[in-house]
Amino acid sequence: MHIQEFQEMMKTLYYARDQERGIEATFKWLEDELQELKEAINEKDKGSIQKEFADVIAWLASLANITEVNLEKAAINKYNSLCPKCKRSPCQCIFIKAKPAVFDQTP
Amino acid sequence: MHIQEFQEMMKTLYYARDQERGIEATFKWLEDELQELKEAINEKDKGSIQKEFADVIAWLASLANITEVNLEKAAINKYNSLCPKCKRSPCQCIFIKAKPAVFDQTP
Repeated sequence: MHIQEFQEMMKTLYYARDQERGIEATFKWLEDELQELKEAINEKDKGSIQKEFADVIAWLASLANITEVNLEKAAINKYNSLCPKCKRSPCQCIFIKAKPAVFDQTP
Repeated sequence: MHIQEFQEMMKTLYYARDQERGIEATFKWLEDELQELKEAINEKDKGSIQKEFADVIAWLASLANITEVNLEKAAINKYNSLCPKCKRSPCQCIFIKAKPAVFDQTP
C-alpha cells in the first residue's frame, strides 16, 4: 500500500474526529502511542510491537491530514534513494549515536 | 511509494548505522524528531513541517528495520479500511479527545 493510500484511508476513517480533536490533542495522542511502542519493545512482545507500530504510523497520518501535509510527498522529497546530507547510498555521514541538541554548541 | 519500499530504502541507506546505534538510541532519536515536528507545527513553518514529517516516518522505518517489523504489513493488519475497534468506516466509536491512561480506572 502506498504511503498516500494509507493516509487517505486514515482520512476516510478518522478525519472528522481528528479535526474535532485538533492538532495539539492529536499530537499528544501520537506521543502516547510512541510510548506504548517503547513499552512493547521493552517487553519484547512481537504481536504488541507490530500493533503499536501500526498505531504510530496511523496517528502520524492523522496528524498529517489535519496539518494538510502529504506524508508520501514529504518523505520522498527528503529521502529519495540518497542520504539527504551526504548524497550517497548507503549513507557515509560521520557516525554519531545520539542526535546533537540544536543549541548544543561550544564556543 | 509503498510503505514497504520506503522502509527498504531506509534499510539500504541506514541499516548498518541503525544496527550499530541500537534500538534504544534509535528510539530516542525518533522521539527527538517528533519534538522537532512539534516545534515546526508550533512555528507554522510549512517547509519545516514537511521535512520533520519526513524525518519522523524515516526514523520510524529505521526503528522497524532493527526491530524486524514490516511496517506496511503491521499497518494493514490493524487498519484495513475499517476502524479496528468499531469495524466501521468512518469510525463510529464514542468520541474521546485524549487517550485514556491504561491504569486510569475509577473503582
